[in-house]
Amino acid sequence: MSQTGVKEEVSLARWARALRRSALQEMLTRASRPGVISFALGLPAAELFPTAEFAEATGRVLTDPRSLQYSPHFQPLKTHVVELMRRRGVACDEGQVFLTAGAQQGMNLLSRLLLESGRQVITEELIYTGFQQVLAPFQPEVLTVPTDPETGMDVDAVDALLSGGARPAFIYAITDGHNPMAVSMSVAKRERLVELARRHRVPILEDDAYGFLCYEGSPKPPLRALDERWVFYLGSFSKVLAPALRVGWIVAPEELMSPLSVIKEATDIDTTTFTQRVINAYLDAGDLPSHIESLRRHYGLRRDTMLDALRSHFPAEARWRTPESGLFVWVELPEQVNADELFRTALESEGVAFIPGHAFGVDPGRPAPRSMRLNFSHSTPEQIAEGVPRLARALKRLNQGLNSHGD
Amino acid sequence: MSQTGVKEEVSLARWARALRRSALQEMLTRASRPGVISFALGLPAAELFPTAEFAEATGRVLTDPRSLQYSPHFQPLKTHVVELMRRRGVACDEGQVFLTAGAQQGMNLLSRLLLESGRQVITEELIYTGFQQVLAPFQPEVLTVPTDPETGMDVDAVDALLSGGARPAFIYAITDGHNPMAVSMSVAKRERLVELARRHRVPILEDDAYGFLCYEGSPKPPLRALDERWVFYLGSFSKVLAPALRVGWIVAPEELMSPLSVIKEATDIDTTTFTQRVINAYLDAGDLPSHIESLRRHYGLRRDTMLDALRSHFPAEARWRTPESGLFVWVELPEQVNADELFRTALESEGVAFIPGHAFGVDPGRPAPRSMRLNFSHSTPEQIAEGVPRLARALKRLNQGLNSHGD
Repeated sequence: MSQTGVKEEVSLARWARALRRSALQEMLTRASRPGVISFALGLPAAELFPTAEFAEATGRVLTDPRSLQYSPHFQPLKTHVVELMRRRGVACDEGQVFLTAGAQQGMNLLSRLLLESGRQVITEELIYTGFQQVLAPFQPEVLTVPTDPETGMDVDAVDALLSGGARPAFIYAITDGHNPMAVSMSVAKRERLVELARRHRVPILEDDAYGFLCYEGSPKPPLRALDERWVFYLGSFSKVLAPALRVGWIVAPEELMSPLSVIKEATDIDTTTFTQRVINAYLDAGDLPSHIESLRRHYGLRRDTMLDALRSHFPAEARWRTPESGLFVWVELPEQVNADELFRTALESEGVAFIPGHAFGVDPGRPAPRSMRLNFSHSTPEQIAEGVPRLARALKRLNQGLNSHGD
Repeated sequence: MSQTGVKEEVSLARWARALRRSALQEMLTRASRPGVISFALGLPAAELFPTAEFAEATGRVLTDPRSLQYSPHFQPLKTHVVELMRRRGVACDEGQVFLTAGAQQGMNLLSRLLLESGRQVITEELIYTGFQQVLAPFQPEVLTVPTDPETGMDVDAVDALLSGGARPAFIYAITDGHNPMAVSMSVAKRERLVELARRHRVPILEDDAYGFLCYEGSPKPPLRALDERWVFYLGSFSKVLAPALRVGWIVAPEELMSPLSVIKEATDIDTTTFTQRVINAYLDAGDLPSHIESLRRHYGLRRDTMLDALRSHFPAEARWRTPESGLFVWVELPEQVNADELFRTALESEGVAFIPGHAFGVDPGRPAPRSMRLNFSHSTPEQIAEGVPRLARALKRLNQGLNSHGD
């Protein structure tokens, strides 16, 4: 036994001993102080949530006490999901829909189903950090491919891996409104990627958190529209309705529903039935299509405000593209800029936050691209018009500092 | 590539290939047909949910759009949990409380934190099947100890395992209203178990889903009241408020909150903030103590109705005890009865369901006790007074069948 006063350590799983919040996360807690304009996180705009409609929906739902009881997936909500998927260009039926506690849980359930320690997976070099967290406990061999900022995932590189003998449990793809790189994959690449999956019998996990938020004409078909056997689709109400309801869905082959049910039950028994029913009542009222249109208008304006401000204030050597979908602009910084230094300067001197691109890197050994991810959904157009010049000032300040060092 | 018409198989993780619903689960789906009285599942009574109060709470919550946004744990709810724990005899503070998607998720997060493949855990021979599902993917070596139907877990056997060199990642204990055996652990055993945990530096996961539902005077102190270092407590609003809100909590040492946060974020980002806030608004109104009193009265009446009916209708060779807490009566059947045959006869001939005791067995190789778990919370007193005689008739029918075979 240890001596009095010495705290006795609980023995954690080896994998869990390294768990701590990253330096970036610690810094981001500072980004929530008053006056800071944050382009860092991928939050939707709270002022656009349909709270009045939810209040009505909730009232209707609470007339039935079964809304508060343990229960299987609420079937009428699955029917709404089938209709939503149809609007997204995807044909599926209720028997292929599995409701989850957000897309994040969907990623976990599918990884649990498909992956085991030491197996391979294919991802891009820069991806949503939440998916990296899903992979971590399985300690897979992650094979990465580059992303073209104009056309998306390097499908040639995927082909080379698969033809070279890679046998991944799955390929992870963020087809529209890529997080963090803001690109939507070209149609030609979509077709080729799905063909590769079919040929090599490798499932694709298609993360479509942002596909409904499209600002340029009609959206491209998701991968699931091109193949119903090898593409497992992850959808979410978090970005089109509200994240705090924690409801998303998987579309996958029907024979996977039974093992998914067992894993789900072991995980947290049910997906919050109360909020499933609230969403269902909201969808019954038929307001979602006009709500999504409204989000497209508002977020589209915020995107354009950000692009205008970047054009007006950022140096010519910085590069970005117009994102078709999603919540982010990806900015490649001038060569001499260190994104971490810029992050600190921007936050401390100018009160503006973003996430440096390398924070999304799958392979910590790979050199970090000089880049940043800017979110445009959570700030008002006024905040964006104020925040981007602040960022530009931080960049200038850093350049001057660099130049004076060079003097 | 496979021939046309032959469905190509998705390759699942080895662990997941065996996943299917058990024969019992399949049979239980038949128990939901109209007219069947079910004592099978551990459901609360939907007609006792405080729906009107929830409707009011929801209205208040939806005046603040932050109720629908991504957000950390809602601090005011943690303060309510601290007060609830105080009423349960436990001193803790907000820094030791972690909110989860029900106790089931709490079990997963703690197992993920403490357990790894191949390690040992200690459990009783018969436990909540949901916890067995949590353990399955880790494939631990499960060391089991018997349960005394009068005093609970065999703590001598735990001592023998630990003194004999066992080094489990944790001990799992259901201290009050044991599921399935309906026993509450004696105070002497509680003290000894905690002392063993301290001496051998082994954490105890204390599953207290039922501790607030106590029908006999004042409840005994949970293990967490006896030690704050080595007991990790799992609580839930599912049984005292409503399961479809999916909110529970862990009480654990403060230094575990940070790794738990990382695991939780990877799992499903947030515990449904909307229902966290609804529960908080409900608790603000101060109605929970009287609601729990009301549940104790109603469930106490249902328990007593079941015990009376068992005394009136069941054969003298069957044995049961008065449960102090929880939702179940545990019945040991006469020696010649096969619980599976009784299950089928009861369901098919008498339209009444229960769960055979062996379904809770951790070790499939161990001979099954002739027993059944009867739930009394989900049926009305009238249904209970009708269902127990039906069960008794099924038992008689089976005995007669057995005797006639013997003729």
